[in-house]
Amino acid sequence: MTIEQWQLQEGDLDDLARGCAILGTGGGGSVETGLLAARRAIRECGSVSVRALDTFADDDIIAPLSGIGAPTVGHEMISSEAEAVALQRAVQDVLRLRIAAVMSSEIGGSNGLAPVAWAARMGLPLVDADAMGRAFPEVQMVSLYVAGVPYNYVVMSDVIGNVSILRPTDGRWAERQARALAVASGSHSLMADYIIPAATARGAVIEGSVSRAVRIGRVMRESTDPIGALREELQARQLIEGKVVDIERRTSGGFVRGSVVIEGVGGDRGQLVRIEIQNENLVALRDGVVLASVPDLITVVDTATGTAISTESLRYGQRASVLAWPCDPIWRTERGLETAGPRAFGYDLDYRPVEELASASV
Amino acid sequence: MTIEQWQLQEGDLDDLARGCAILGTGGGGSVETGLLAARRAIRECGSVSVRALDTFADDDIIAPLSGIGAPTVGHEMISSEAEAVALQRAVQDVLRLRIAAVMSSEIGGSNGLAPVAWAARMGLPLVDADAMGRAFPEVQMVSLYVAGVPYNYVVMSDVIGNVSILRPTDGRWAERQARALAVASGSHSLMADYIIPAATARGAVIEGSVSRAVRIGRVMRESTDPIGALREELQARQLIEGKVVDIERRTSGGFVRGSVVIEGVGGDRGQLVRIEIQNENLVALRDGVVLASVPDLITVVDTATGTAISTESLRYGQRASVLAWPCDPIWRTERGLETAGPRAFGYDLDYRPVEELASASV
Repeated sequence: MTIEQWQLQEGDLDDLARGCAILGTGGGGSVETGLLAARRAIRECGSVSVRALDTFADDDIIAPLSGIGAPTVGHEMISSEAEAVALQRAVQDVLRLRIAAVMSSEIGGSNGLAPVAWAARMGLPLVDADAMGRAFPEVQMVSLYVAGVPYNYVVMSDVIGNVSILRPTDGRWAERQARALAVASGSHSLMADYIIPAATARGAVIEGSVSRAVRIGRVMRESTDPIGALREELQARQLIEGKVVDIERRTSGGFVRGSVVIEGVGGDRGQLVRIEIQNENLVALRDGVVLASVPDLITVVDTATGTAISTESLRYGQRASVLAWPCDPIWRTERGLETAGPRAFGYDLDYRPVEELASASV
Repeated sequence: MTIEQWQLQEGDLDDLARGCAILGTGGGGSVETGLLAARRAIRECGSVSVRALDTFADDDIIAPLSGIGAPTVGHEMISSEAEAVALQRAVQDVLRLRIAAVMSSEIGGSNGLAPVAWAARMGLPLVDADAMGRAFPEVQMVSLYVAGVPYNYVVMSDVIGNVSILRPTDGRWAERQARALAVASGSHSLMADYIIPAATARGAVIEGSVSRAVRIGRVMRESTDPIGALREELQARQLIEGKVVDIERRTSGGFVRGSVVIEGVGGDRGQLVRIEIQNENLVALRDGVVLASVPDLITVVDTATGTAISTESLRYGQRASVLAWPCDPIWRTERGLETAGPRAFGYDLDYRPVEELASASV
């Protein structure tokens, strides 16, 4: 059962941050900066009303928002507090549309937290939904695109005060143009991927994401076995428990790319799991055999605490476990896999659900 | 005396092209592609009314247009015929403004001709003015910026069909963002640098540019001594008559950069003149002594015909003469020189008017 409406208070933010980090599959930006921004915004502007999509009228305008850019930059540069209001004003002045609610485009990572700050500063409610159910690196990798919602406006706002309204011909061009502008602004911008009425969002977004992230953070906090609690909450497989023995990572074209190798300890001694990265964890392999791949979720967590380790925070020698679990069903449709399956990232392999791969590898 | 209104016919295009090439100072894009586009548009849509700025009502909306990108790309890729209409439609649908007239942002090179095609396709008159009186490589290098007209909208349209509306904080950001989008679209886009009422354009643009370019082309055609005719028409100095002995040229970040060396023949034997290039000819030097520099105009012409040789058409061994003449007075103001003087292009030298330098070097 989805709760129709609740107030997101400062005290909920730590749970939300833990949950968003888990759903971030290594990306979506550092939750620390999103947490700082959300805490400061709630202190200054008050708590945020989180509302189920069905509480909105059909013509209420929803802005799905996210930060776009390289996580390594987001890690060091806190967004300007004026960006969200500048975007809101541009939509009102130029497009003559009044935004009724903010939605997180991606619940994973900082992009699950920052919308709390943006909603607080804009004085708007937050929709209890997102457009990924996780994090993905490219602009067109959203459920709205998979559901066939045509691009209308991509609105961008940067720390300098530049605001841009793009009308790209399709999702690939939305990605290419938004990325070019984000890179020109120093590899970090605020973006609304669409400006849509609630009626258009229905059935095209993943509902309950904010509540789910808070719940994940809470079970981790309340359990004495956080990884066990996560496995149960997420219905996740543990691919390996070990330590980080190799990291290769570079920032190029607005992305972090690379790979990490985890060597097993304890019962997993002698095993090596490699994870391929483009902002997020994309594919996990053991001896060349795929254990899990996008669009299913792969998250590296600290073995002691269960805390997610983002791709930009991976360090040699970390004790880490790898969890993998099923994505939202929309990503397993033909268009979902075209958009964010292994081939969309340049891997020449057919997608197989993580639950099948895990059974086969036992 | 400015003629208030005249019809630009297909028969005027060759003169216009010759004149725009001369005013292009080597850049502004190849006149051949602009000529093809203008001829086809006039054949399909009819001749274009060229009107003095004072024939427009104060609130008539003017769109100063130009192609943005590397000339080497413009040389090979003819703009889509739909770009101008897509831009016109976006301004109408999104900004709810009806464009009353097209203006050339830069009269030099292809950007002096292509607006004829855009005006014909949009069914609009062309203002007899431009915002440079020549060609310049960067977006903020326009008289409107020098005159302090605040940026409102930069509207871009590309061959793919993407349309973008930018609200940059200032001219430098207009350049940076527009360039990033143009590069993302394959290094060539159509751009309106502003969307302004005629009242705002008055005093902030260079009037009579289209008529002037046609006149330059005509005196070249009608004279048996085209270079002599050019010197008289432009009040130009000839810096050298010689042949091209060295060219260095590369395309990077959306620009053509490099230099050309011309070795004197006849009375100029034993002299070497080097010209520094960023899309346009920026500085001409003899033995390290500056003979002319931006914002004054420097054009390389074919010694036999007087035809301008664009930076992307320079070839080893060409017989070439170099002409230089004074820019519009707006460029010699403090803000004009800050925007497009030698230091704006990274040259550590004080601007001196070409007529002073020429007298000193005799």
